[in-house]
Amino acid sequence: MTVPFPIRLHTAIRRKRTPALVGLDPRLDWLPDDVLRRARDEHSDPQAVAAAAFEEFCVRIIDVVAPLVPAVKPQAAFFEEYGPDGCLALARIMRYARSQGLIVICDAKRGDIGTTAEAYARAYLAGEDPNAAPWSADALTVNPYLGGDTLQPFVQVARARGAGIYVLVRTSNPGARLFQDRISEGQTVYQAVATGVEQLAAEIVDNDGYGCVGAVVGATYPAELAELRRLMPHSPLLVPGYGSQGGTAADVAAAFDDRGLGALVNNSRGINFAYRSGPFAGQFSPWQWEAAVEAATKQMIADLAAHTPAGRLEAPHT
Amino acid sequence: MTVPFPIRLHTAIRRKRTPALVGLDPRLDWLPDDVLRRARDEHSDPQAVAAAAFEEFCVRIIDVVAPLVPAVKPQAAFFEEYGPDGCLALARIMRYARSQGLIVICDAKRGDIGTTAEAYARAYLAGEDPNAAPWSADALTVNPYLGGDTLQPFVQVARARGAGIYVLVRTSNPGARLFQDRISEGQTVYQAVATGVEQLAAEIVDNDGYGCVGAVVGATYPAELAELRRLMPHSPLLVPGYGSQGGTAADVAAAFDDRGLGALVNNSRGINFAYRSGPFAGQFSPWQWEAAVEAATKQMIADLAAHTPAGRLEAPHT
Repeated sequence: MTVPFPIRLHTAIRRKRTPALVGLDPRLDWLPDDVLRRARDEHSDPQAVAAAAFEEFCVRIIDVVAPLVPAVKPQAAFFEEYGPDGCLALARIMRYARSQGLIVICDAKRGDIGTTAEAYARAYLAGEDPNAAPWSADALTVNPYLGGDTLQPFVQVARARGAGIYVLVRTSNPGARLFQDRISEGQTVYQAVATGVEQLAAEIVDNDGYGCVGAVVGATYPAELAELRRLMPHSPLLVPGYGSQGGTAADVAAAFDDRGLGALVNNSRGINFAYRSGPFAGQFSPWQWEAAVEAATKQMIADLAAHTPAGRLEAPHT
Repeated sequence: MTVPFPIRLHTAIRRKRTPALVGLDPRLDWLPDDVLRRARDEHSDPQAVAAAAFEEFCVRIIDVVAPLVPAVKPQAAFFEEYGPDGCLALARIMRYARSQGLIVICDAKRGDIGTTAEAYARAYLAGEDPNAAPWSADALTVNPYLGGDTLQPFVQVARARGAGIYVLVRTSNPGARLFQDRISEGQTVYQAVATGVEQLAAEIVDNDGYGCVGAVVGATYPAELAELRRLMPHSPLLVPGYGSQGGTAADVAAAFDDRGLGALVNNSRGINFAYRSGPFAGQFSPWQWEAAVEAATKQMIADLAAHTPAGRLEAPHT
């Protein structure tokens, strides 16, 4: 019997007693010198250098955060930028994160029609068994523009494999309002998408009341976050925008249910590159970059515990 | 001086005197036996088998169609389904198509915000120089749901490199209407997207009157196609849905300007797998699958010439 994604997700959240999600967003220009130097010693092709450096950087971040947080979210674009070598590094990093007990959400924002959507779903949604797909994701971010029928192949593969999807509902970029906020019949486009997501999520729910169809909801509009939590009571939320994108723990509090479940809050740059910028930049030398990752992660965990219902999370009864 | 994408596109269309676009949609279950057998002889890992078979299949299709059509459109999902091996095959196939003088449109429907969108743009939009990016695309399909600002990084890279983008405006799947047709202030979402695409396309146009920002417009609604051609006079259109998706040449006629320029019409399965299904299935044995590809391509070219303004295309004055 396959264990549904929301059960695996919430077990991981309860075990770590935090909904902190660490994004893996490697950027070549910002990598620590020691990581970059080793990659350059071992490779000459620029794409191979980047791929090797990204793999070491992300594996070492995973080693730091695996005891602390339930999940990581690699951003596919930064790997695809370095071609097939980058894609191979992404696959290996995802596999490694799974081996360290982490939930892996691949942020690739895929979306297409019919059999093409099926191919993406089979490619990324490994679900419970990391070997069930070439990219070992527990969940994938998905773009809804092509319509509700294009989400179905993802939902079917997700259910069969114990995987999940996070549908883009509301994003926090300046231009998001252009299409997402258009109103017809008293409802914005993003509210209509949320309604569709809730319908899919509610079809099959676990004991905690959640389905495998989640939603990405930007954190820079706290009132909208509360509204979307109400509109999608059965949908696990993925909330980007904390930290370097300007969101605070108070801004994201409305994403959670009373038990502190139902949401992951993401921080990518603020953790990956804590040694370079932000409150920890002055406290650590460049060669102590992993200590900066750890400090930034622990601060985020404490911040979420203090200012959101995640502070009420209890360890699982096992 | 970089030659803009619409100039390179229309030069290719004039040279071949057809707007026929051959999609490259390899499907493992449908591959000819000889291709599959050779891949299995040389590889044992299932992903490596699929990748090797896809590469041979697509290279042989390219060899057949390169003298006949201006452009090919590989579908990224079918390659990603087979992991990093599949991605490597995709990169090699795109490079090979460029070496055979074809315009390559990578159908990956990417979209994200800010620096993430930039990473996708740099990854795929090689533009005039096939070596300028790891994936040698002349153009990329892009999803607009995240808003107009998220298209900007793609437009900037496209302009700098002589590449193009095709923004998803109207799709032909059954559920497309769910979000795309929502009306506010007298305009549907897809009309609003089209207006945004036209603004971007019109900023810089070439002598034929086209910019580097195109649009994907489904062919199963001919009246909408005519409307969208009017709404986006400076935007090259990519029209899927011909052939196996049910569209006819008459259905797509409205996509063109009076000279037969301004649109590419795609056929994937109807050409790739002409030996298996459709009007040519009975005429060719499985080992003659390339002859079936050629016959299906030539029939599409003749059909478009007879029933659309593409029949007026003149060879370039060189």
